[in-house]
Amino acid sequence: MNEVTIRPIAHIESDFPEKFGIPRQAGIVEELRAKVVFEEPFRNPEALRGIEGFSHLWLIWQFSENVRADFSPTVRPPRLGGNTRLGVFATRSPFRPNALGLSCVRLLGLEKTREKGTVLLVAGADLMDGTPIFDIKPYLPYADCRPEATGGFAPDAPEKLKVVFPAAALETIPPDKRAALRGVLENDPRPRYHSDPERLYAMSFAGLTVRFRVKDGTLRVESVE
Amino acid sequence: MNEVTIRPIAHIESDFPEKFGIPRQAGIVEELRAKVVFEEPFRNPEALRGIEGFSHLWLIWQFSENVRADFSPTVRPPRLGGNTRLGVFATRSPFRPNALGLSCVRLLGLEKTREKGTVLLVAGADLMDGTPIFDIKPYLPYADCRPEATGGFAPDAPEKLKVVFPAAALETIPPDKRAALRGVLENDPRPRYHSDPERLYAMSFAGLTVRFRVKDGTLRVESVE
Repeated sequence: MNEVTIRPIAHIESDFPEKFGIPRQAGIVEELRAKVVFEEPFRNPEALRGIEGFSHLWLIWQFSENVRADFSPTVRPPRLGGNTRLGVFATRSPFRPNALGLSCVRLLGLEKTREKGTVLLVAGADLMDGTPIFDIKPYLPYADCRPEATGGFAPDAPEKLKVVFPAAALETIPPDKRAALRGVLENDPRPRYHSDPERLYAMSFAGLTVRFRVKDGTLRVESVE
Repeated sequence: MNEVTIRPIAHIESDFPEKFGIPRQAGIVEELRAKVVFEEPFRNPEALRGIEGFSHLWLIWQFSENVRADFSPTVRPPRLGGNTRLGVFATRSPFRPNALGLSCVRLLGLEKTREKGTVLLVAGADLMDGTPIFDIKPYLPYADCRPEATGGFAPDAPEKLKVVFPAAALETIPPDKRAALRGVLENDPRPRYHSDPERLYAMSFAGLTVRFRVKDGTLRVESVE
């Protein structure tokens, strides 16, 4: 087998400093905002010429926190409760050979910056802050959108939780981050095999620490700092 | 920039021994059949458990014929006639950093073989025979199918040619390859900047050499050997 060396063309700047809380697929929380920042020598606006014509982009990236040398042929998807084993190639699990991730994000626009050159503003990304990106491709509806496709054990987006914020907590959150945080919480950041209604979780998001409990389908925010 | 080493988990067995004639996106010629053959240690049917539940798969692979050390920020997509330059990240051109390809194929089934273990039978692949594959992921309709997406300079599949076979040529082609070959020819294998009606092209497909000319929107097969 011929090994291949690839190198990041860019990295993402997102509101997730750690894995906990990141939506399990791209596009689930459309309100999330992130920036794609190019590395040299790829920091060249010419390489983006025409990209504004596309509403969506593919990012190919690395689950940089999940790189493992050993190969486990099966994984336990959270969608199945975390106890059922499926083949790794039948899932989007991060624990996979080469640890490559694939995400469809919406392109909001380009921003010229002094320090980082032209960056891409994207919505719906499910990448941890700093994640290396190896390729960016336009989403081609005629090739990539397959309405006839059937989705195995994950035919639809997961069910959402009801989210309750105390008024004081809500005010702590910058207005432009509120909808995204709500979206993240609605999608249940907990590991799927957790069901302790007393357990207090802490999630880092956009410089905030958000503490919450989940009981009977309702996520109650306890504090935001 | 941190380089990353990845290694093939599989390779494809397709009817294209060379680049010429390969459809420019996956799924355009649905009649094409190919096999995904796993490398050791990934040749383990456990790694595929549950994959039959998905109708479509993503392949992440390498344009192994197009690996280049230098970086060109722009390319000339055949869809624009081959003369207009666009940014490489606004196209699906093979001439891109890391030379990674992304293809959505239909999963037809699994086949247990004595020599190659369990292989995947897929339809619509746009990969050259022997292409190394780095990852296989299920297509998740709720995350990957974006009917609202707009497609920039390539909103639809390219227009098709009319294809004419002489009766004798048609009989030379194995019956199970005819529809696929017709599909490949309909999608105009020529480089887009070619328009010489006298020029005789030769394409290798499924062990055959197919010679043809194109004039006024009609592709006429001259011989099949």
